[in-house]
Amino acid sequence: MDVAAHLAARAAEVEAALDRLLPPGETSPPQLHQAMRYSLEAGGKRLRPALVLDACACAGGDPDTALPTACALECIHTYSLIHDDLPCMDDDDLRRGRPSCHKQFDEATALLAGDALLTLAFGLVAGNLGEDGVTAGQVVRVTAEVAEAAGTPGMVGGQMLDLLGEGQPPTAELVEAIHLRKTTALLRAAVRCGAILGGAGDAEFEALSAYGRNLGLAFQIVDDILDIVGDEAALGKPVGSDVGLAKATWPAVHGLDESRRYAHALIAEAQRSLDGFGAEAEPLRALAAFVEERQS
Amino acid sequence: MDVAAHLAARAAEVEAALDRLLPPGETSPPQLHQAMRYSLEAGGKRLRPALVLDACACAGGDPDTALPTACALECIHTYSLIHDDLPCMDDDDLRRGRPSCHKQFDEATALLAGDALLTLAFGLVAGNLGEDGVTAGQVVRVTAEVAEAAGTPGMVGGQMLDLLGEGQPPTAELVEAIHLRKTTALLRAAVRCGAILGGAGDAEFEALSAYGRNLGLAFQIVDDILDIVGDEAALGKPVGSDVGLAKATWPAVHGLDESRRYAHALIAEAQRSLDGFGAEAEPLRALAAFVEERQS
Repeated sequence: MDVAAHLAARAAEVEAALDRLLPPGETSPPQLHQAMRYSLEAGGKRLRPALVLDACACAGGDPDTALPTACALECIHTYSLIHDDLPCMDDDDLRRGRPSCHKQFDEATALLAGDALLTLAFGLVAGNLGEDGVTAGQVVRVTAEVAEAAGTPGMVGGQMLDLLGEGQPPTAELVEAIHLRKTTALLRAAVRCGAILGGAGDAEFEALSAYGRNLGLAFQIVDDILDIVGDEAALGKPVGSDVGLAKATWPAVHGLDESRRYAHALIAEAQRSLDGFGAEAEPLRALAAFVEERQS
Repeated sequence: MDVAAHLAARAAEVEAALDRLLPPGETSPPQLHQAMRYSLEAGGKRLRPALVLDACACAGGDPDTALPTACALECIHTYSLIHDDLPCMDDDDLRRGRPSCHKQFDEATALLAGDALLTLAFGLVAGNLGEDGVTAGQVVRVTAEVAEAAGTPGMVGGQMLDLLGEGQPPTAELVEAIHLRKTTALLRAAVRCGAILGGAGDAEFEALSAYGRNLGLAFQIVDDILDIVGDEAALGKPVGSDVGLAKATWPAVHGLDESRRYAHALIAEAQRSLDGFGAEAEPLRALAAFVEERQS
């Protein structure tokens, strides 16, 4: 299957749904709603919402009925980027080639836009009850999944560990803890939420959950590899160990070759989790291959 | 009824539940969990959780079954204080006589502690499904209420309006919009969430909702009045109009006497909303009287 075309189609569905579900940019207070849309519209691959929709379909559900939750996951991802870019955190002026939210607006607006997107995400999940065949029990399970993955056991805790570890040579244990919480948790939750909304049985749910965990960890390791390879390409020489060692990345503690090997093993394991499924798992299989092979 | 004793008893219940439901301070990453607890333990009247519990009882429910949602409302209130105190917002070094979260820890930790408390709040609401007799349908309604009250139609939108209006003489319309969103929305939501969990019928729900709206707006107007009276007591002379006019407060646009009169009228209206209830509404009646008469 053409995974690029599939991802583009999913992204278009999600972007149309976001436009429908977000407060219009001109409503009061306009600056806040504009900042939310500015960051959401910056794009990206929309991988998390695609995982929600494809996991829902894989479990036998109609992916359209999971669109509000797919949008919620993208809102949470976007909020985390806005807050991570703030001066008191990573202090990044650019995000996806455009001024980051606090540079385009100001720090207060960026802080509030992040808070608003996180809050809206749970409103979108609650609103998923209005979709055909979705039960309140499913929505409560999804709410719990999202809160755990975005909270201190997941994303927020991972960002705190990352900040606390800055400037020290990272250990393998710390890098794994950061990656599992900061990135893997939300990608895994995207798959689990889709599985719940698609009506997965216990065995299907566990298989999809394992897929999400291994895909999510591989995604971050590949990200680490691309960062280094990209830096090397830009510099025209291998990145010095002083740069590599200061950051909590997989290659910094395991080297590039071992990182590539492990990412490949994780993707193979993710593919094996899908063995019990048929053609309905094709998009998830293609996404796993894409995560390993992507170049950006 | 002795409202001070009642509020103290409710606060003790909520604080015990928070201690049970929050990640322990020593778990990884400790600094984040300590910051969350530091700000939550700073105290305050615990008015929002008390309203959840008393509205639940008023609607005929067992207030113990609403404790996770009561804690969620306190987490949201606390997160909003942490973020409002940050340098890019109100830049306050003190909160309730102690260093604010970013002074006690640092800005990044305070930002993440706020994010974590907001996220945890929705996890607590989802966890309310485990309580006796609570249905998934009730939990989804509560989730939607909290997301709306805390989001851009409510708290976050109100804070944005407040920041945008700074330095300009406020209009009556702007002050009302800020108060309704920044403070009233969450107090009203507390009452509505309690009513939902208590199993309120439509008429009861509307009556309690009106009570929450009028109580919430009165609360903020009294807060504005106490700020001015407190400043005058500290200065030993009336506060100059230059100070009063720069802030979006009720007395700044309506004067002190009219503000007192309107707060009294709102509380009387809130009391009238409870006319259809019997003894089960006594705590809510006492809380309304407390909101008008409080001196701090």
